[in-house]
Amino acid sequence: MERVFVFDAYGTLFDLGSMQSHLEARWPSYGSIIMQLWRLKQLEYSWLRTLMGEPFVDFWIVTKQSLQFALSSAGIILSQSDVEKVASEYHRLKLFPEVRAALQTLPARCAILSNGSQSMLDALVANAGIGAELDEVISVDAARAFKPHPRCYALVESVLHVAPKNVVFISSNSFDVSGAKRFGFTTVWLNRSPPEDAIAPVDPSQLYRLMRTQPEQLDAIPDYTCASLERVRRALKI
Amino acid sequence: MERVFVFDAYGTLFDLGSMQSHLEARWPSYGSIIMQLWRLKQLEYSWLRTLMGEPFVDFWIVTKQSLQFALSSAGIILSQSDVEKVASEYHRLKLFPEVRAALQTLPARCAILSNGSQSMLDALVANAGIGAELDEVISVDAARAFKPHPRCYALVESVLHVAPKNVVFISSNSFDVSGAKRFGFTTVWLNRSPPEDAIAPVDPSQLYRLMRTQPEQLDAIPDYTCASLERVRRALKI
Repeated sequence: MERVFVFDAYGTLFDLGSMQSHLEARWPSYGSIIMQLWRLKQLEYSWLRTLMGEPFVDFWIVTKQSLQFALSSAGIILSQSDVEKVASEYHRLKLFPEVRAALQTLPARCAILSNGSQSMLDALVANAGIGAELDEVISVDAARAFKPHPRCYALVESVLHVAPKNVVFISSNSFDVSGAKRFGFTTVWLNRSPPEDAIAPVDPSQLYRLMRTQPEQLDAIPDYTCASLERVRRALKI
Repeated sequence: MERVFVFDAYGTLFDLGSMQSHLEARWPSYGSIIMQLWRLKQLEYSWLRTLMGEPFVDFWIVTKQSLQFALSSAGIILSQSDVEKVASEYHRLKLFPEVRAALQTLPARCAILSNGSQSMLDALVANAGIGAELDEVISVDAARAFKPHPRCYALVESVLHVAPKNVVFISSNSFDVSGAKRFGFTTVWLNRSPPEDAIAPVDPSQLYRLMRTQPEQLDAIPDYTCASLERVRRALKI
């Protein structure tokens, strides 16, 4: 039985931290709020558009429209081309430190399955220089839907010719893990920022973190939870 | 041509403000953060569950699971029956002040179309004493999906026998207005809390407000935007 490792991209392999620094440098003291609104709306729009159905627009459009929303909320009006410039930082995201080594040493085929459009993902993989480590870079474009719609996860079988039960799917996005688990993949929730367990750190200005780093209540428990990719092999005993 | 007025329920006819007061009274200084997380997750789960497909669970389950998530984020662990007790405040929400008079004087059939389960909505309408003002109280239950899935809006025609073009749909939820507009309804976005236009009031602890009171970037502009139901008749010239 061949096992294949499939990774989410944004927040899982690629660190969005640099984005917030760019925003903060350009709009001092607004970096965090713009970033939180942007990412919350980006996912929200991906879900809403999938629910509303055709016409499908790709993640590049969704990314720019959600940025536009976040900027307006902060009273910032930019031209379309300036919005595009800010968003294009998405093509230059850095890998999390352990990713390259993890991809190089996993004794199995590796692929990406991401909401990103094919051209966003191709630019990202090329800039990070991990093309040789990946067997496929799968965009949801072909499914004309965003995760967690089952059509997205179904692309893995059609592209890699591997049954869902032989797929280990790794994502830092807990909703993504829920969708993948329901679809039939073996799932690893990569929770890179485990919340402190005391009540004190509940900070209203960190709503994004609170929204995204708790286990979801969606009746789909991840098979494994790890704090970094280095832990995945040990957790899966490979 | 008969025109029918269809209203969203939560936040549109019914005020959720009392909910936050209850939470704040029970968990001092945590009312706002719990409420924000609860409502953001409640919608998020309604969308995610619709995207993931069967099994459908109704809005009562979604409401309890999202409350559970919000409470855990604040480090609060309650039993299932205590969670149920907190959530059951949803059955006793008060109408916004102008709603009763507006429903009584609109010269047309009026109905509710809400994500709420049929039993949640029946309790709500009975407690508020507006049963006589409404021709139908339509839950999305029968569509086995949540708004903005088109199957939900399609229930209006099957229940009220009115073509989409003759429906005026009124909601305070901008995503709901986007979905209804795309479906073919005439739409009114009831923005009860228009954001200040200066940059100063951008308050990171008010992420919920920022997420919900700006026009969406979803390529579906509401036909009308009003600050209260009293303005709707004037806007539509009736």
